[in-house]
Amino acid sequence: MENKIKRQLPTDVMQKLDKEPFASTDFGEPTIQRTAPKVTATTGQHKLASSLQEVVEQTVKDGMTISFHHHFREGDYIFNQVMRLIIDAGYKDLTLAPSSLTNVMNDIVVEAIEKGVVTNITSSGMRGSLGEAVSHGALKNPVIFRSHGGRARAIEEGSIKIDVAFLGVPNADEMGNANGMDGKAAFGSLGYALMDAQYADKVVLITDELKPYPNTPASIKQTQVDYVVKVDQVGNPDKIGSGATRFTKDPKELKIAKMVNDVIVNSPYFKEGFSFQTGSGGAALAVTRFLRQSMLDQNIKASFALGGITKPTIDLLEEGLVSKVMDVQDFDKGAAASMHANKNQQEIDASWYADPANKGAMVDQLDVSILSALEIDTNFNVNVMTGSDGVIRGAVGGHQDAATSKLTIICAPLVRGRIATVVPEVTTEVTPGASVDVLVTEAGIAVNPQRQDLLDIFKQVPNLALYTIEELQQKAQQIVGQAQPLEFTDQTVALVEYRDGTIIDAINAVKD
Amino acid sequence: MENKIKRQLPTDVMQKLDKEPFASTDFGEPTIQRTAPKVTATTGQHKLASSLQEVVEQTVKDGMTISFHHHFREGDYIFNQVMRLIIDAGYKDLTLAPSSLTNVMNDIVVEAIEKGVVTNITSSGMRGSLGEAVSHGALKNPVIFRSHGGRARAIEEGSIKIDVAFLGVPNADEMGNANGMDGKAAFGSLGYALMDAQYADKVVLITDELKPYPNTPASIKQTQVDYVVKVDQVGNPDKIGSGATRFTKDPKELKIAKMVNDVIVNSPYFKEGFSFQTGSGGAALAVTRFLRQSMLDQNIKASFALGGITKPTIDLLEEGLVSKVMDVQDFDKGAAASMHANKNQQEIDASWYADPANKGAMVDQLDVSILSALEIDTNFNVNVMTGSDGVIRGAVGGHQDAATSKLTIICAPLVRGRIATVVPEVTTEVTPGASVDVLVTEAGIAVNPQRQDLLDIFKQVPNLALYTIEELQQKAQQIVGQAQPLEFTDQTVALVEYRDGTIIDAINAVKD
Repeated sequence: MENKIKRQLPTDVMQKLDKEPFASTDFGEPTIQRTAPKVTATTGQHKLASSLQEVVEQTVKDGMTISFHHHFREGDYIFNQVMRLIIDAGYKDLTLAPSSLTNVMNDIVVEAIEKGVVTNITSSGMRGSLGEAVSHGALKNPVIFRSHGGRARAIEEGSIKIDVAFLGVPNADEMGNANGMDGKAAFGSLGYALMDAQYADKVVLITDELKPYPNTPASIKQTQVDYVVKVDQVGNPDKIGSGATRFTKDPKELKIAKMVNDVIVNSPYFKEGFSFQTGSGGAALAVTRFLRQSMLDQNIKASFALGGITKPTIDLLEEGLVSKVMDVQDFDKGAAASMHANKNQQEIDASWYADPANKGAMVDQLDVSILSALEIDTNFNVNVMTGSDGVIRGAVGGHQDAATSKLTIICAPLVRGRIATVVPEVTTEVTPGASVDVLVTEAGIAVNPQRQDLLDIFKQVPNLALYTIEELQQKAQQIVGQAQPLEFTDQTVALVEYRDGTIIDAINAVKD
Repeated sequence: MENKIKRQLPTDVMQKLDKEPFASTDFGEPTIQRTAPKVTATTGQHKLASSLQEVVEQTVKDGMTISFHHHFREGDYIFNQVMRLIIDAGYKDLTLAPSSLTNVMNDIVVEAIEKGVVTNITSSGMRGSLGEAVSHGALKNPVIFRSHGGRARAIEEGSIKIDVAFLGVPNADEMGNANGMDGKAAFGSLGYALMDAQYADKVVLITDELKPYPNTPASIKQTQVDYVVKVDQVGNPDKIGSGATRFTKDPKELKIAKMVNDVIVNSPYFKEGFSFQTGSGGAALAVTRFLRQSMLDQNIKASFALGGITKPTIDLLEEGLVSKVMDVQDFDKGAAASMHANKNQQEIDASWYADPANKGAMVDQLDVSILSALEIDTNFNVNVMTGSDGVIRGAVGGHQDAATSKLTIICAPLVRGRIATVVPEVTTEVTPGASVDVLVTEAGIAVNPQRQDLLDIFKQVPNLALYTIEELQQKAQQIVGQAQPLEFTDQTVALVEYRDGTIIDAINAVKD
């Protein structure tokens, strides 16, 4: 089976999992019956559990779907505690459905797979030992990779039915009112976890700081929570987000950032009230700095900034250059700390951020998004999932979602070491070229031919180094040579969903 | 058919509507599958409708359930505009499911009933010409009266399935992000309307103030809204809530208020971290003032105040005597205005406030509630629904819900004019005596015999005028004489649900 962008998909797996092949970036306006949890009523006297083990015993059964959030990132102390109890109790055939999997979770998931505890995974991404294991066929069933918006859609439509959500929070009261803004392990927005809190049948909050009742502001509400467990520490504050944000001094990143800013500023979208999403990489952070200067120079203010938020974006908010920050996740301490102090920093859940199946996601209103790539091919298709060796080492994240913006700019170096970023064909298709408008590399800028309007405008701009993407691909190839074709086995180890739930690509096991 | 508290219920109606008779105030811990709306996806380009008429035509069909909120109270300009369009378009057989019906809505509902446009109603209450019409058998089917918590439960479990919600808001952006805190017709908390926004298939926001996108804080979110309509005026600010709150100078109300305070202060619940709900009546407001002085005198602070909020409660919050105000509704401008300035004034929806079928409502945590009564009988059963003539002129409101508190105090004058408040048997049973602890009248205090613990404590308190409720009933009878028994026809015009969905009483048509 082949989808509209000519990616080969395994017919048998597709049929077994009842999946449709990707056809279009246009979601249309379907009417979908939402799902809802089974709720056990309580007045709450017995919510505060004596131990995590007790709660696991009371809630988890073989075959269930369990979930976690990844807001603690590499500082997460929750996932390993819960999974250790689950593995040691000898559960079988669980589906793991976290918002994403960070490196600190890798080894224990590999162990859970090897012991048959986990036989299904859906996630935004995975890396390290887990990516290696899955890419070598360790998991019984294919992983389903979903974007943040796609996960929200899948939860809301019932494709992901969470039985038990284990949600770490830096504060909570005994009834389960909690937020991510205060406490030793504060991380700011609870955006991804809000989906689990609303839709899981059983919600277990795990915290290291019990607050007096009632704890407000309540991002997660007592009406959603079955159990509250107090533990010693939910996360390592130093690893949750980067500390002080330092701007890159890498000349290549600075050059790319300046070129990205030139593209934005010369586009028709750079005008009063525009909106943007940047990321947390070195170049993306530097873009924010260049963009700030351009906004000051031209007296232009943004209506909102979106996405994973960093302190430089909060600085723009405080400076009045951005009216609102719509915050699904905070990437650093500065952004996390400002949340409860600044009422223009609005916490949003993953559905509001990016679910195409709701009544309007923030990404639908986005003018400019700046995204990264592991690979981008001459059809502007982007891979952020597999490495040049074909092994899983990435995440869909909000990539597909933010790419629906009016001006989607992929910024990436032309090559990384001996590996080309601009390639004839991506190893794994994650974000279709139909939703990508411009590629910026240090060696030049390529505009998607479907955006002739942009090309016409940019051609009038002096010093904008325009090339065709084929020319950039050739440049890359001249530097690093032609890559050997990768070899894969017939085993499908993962399916990559497009944000609408169709399958945009399959990932096969690598040959050793 | 008779329920546990010996109220006669119409077997045929009960069976037809699949209703169970009331049995107990204990909700237990059932597991209930929640319902969810059918959502039509959109990116939102066409949300802003050109007219209310256009939206009504696109959304409403014969036989549908439509809803409204009553946060504008007697200043509501939305209900009449929408209902006029609906009546004039000739719709048939609609179910009206507002959070409540205020006097300003009466006449047009009567017209809609007479024309067959509305054939079913569920509401917290009704009064005036509408109460008269329904009590004289005008509506085809019995009204279902539900408490605020009961309505939340019914919506969440699917007993009320809202097809289209018409929600007036004092501000919104073109995508539907809205709150009740700002704007000419600001009313504060959107507590009741949040249920409709979350569960209706179609949500229509009607506003007189379009804000720049994205509008925050967003109590109602763009992900919930299908249409936004701009009108000239959504409400009359002077009639939405009382302006400056003046304390009563009525000596009887002051006496009752002081006695209520004596009961609270001498109860075991008056201690550091206690919680309370007062109402908006003259005596209730005065209680707040006496309570403030007692809290200062004894250096006791409350953890939270709940319910319909008034400025005097906000004053306690600002004074530090109350830590949090949990706010489902604001009764005056002062309370409404403080909401977006004070982060300890947390907006809560009707489910969080009082739904017994969720994972813990605020009312379950309540220590002290002060409630009113039209009638209270010698079994401490309370009527807040029908007048002494048997005609509907009241509302369940949060009465049943807040009565689940640890110390529920009914405060009421012994008699009103020539009508006794304390009676041998209430005309209509709304709140069961099993959940009422103390009655305070200007003539004395009665403690429910099931609360022997309280009685023992209060007997030690000097100057607490304790009587049996039979004695108070006799006192009332001595003043106003014995009332003539009311005469009703066999037609059931309304069923009163207890908060768990069982039927606590039936209301029959009055004989002319």
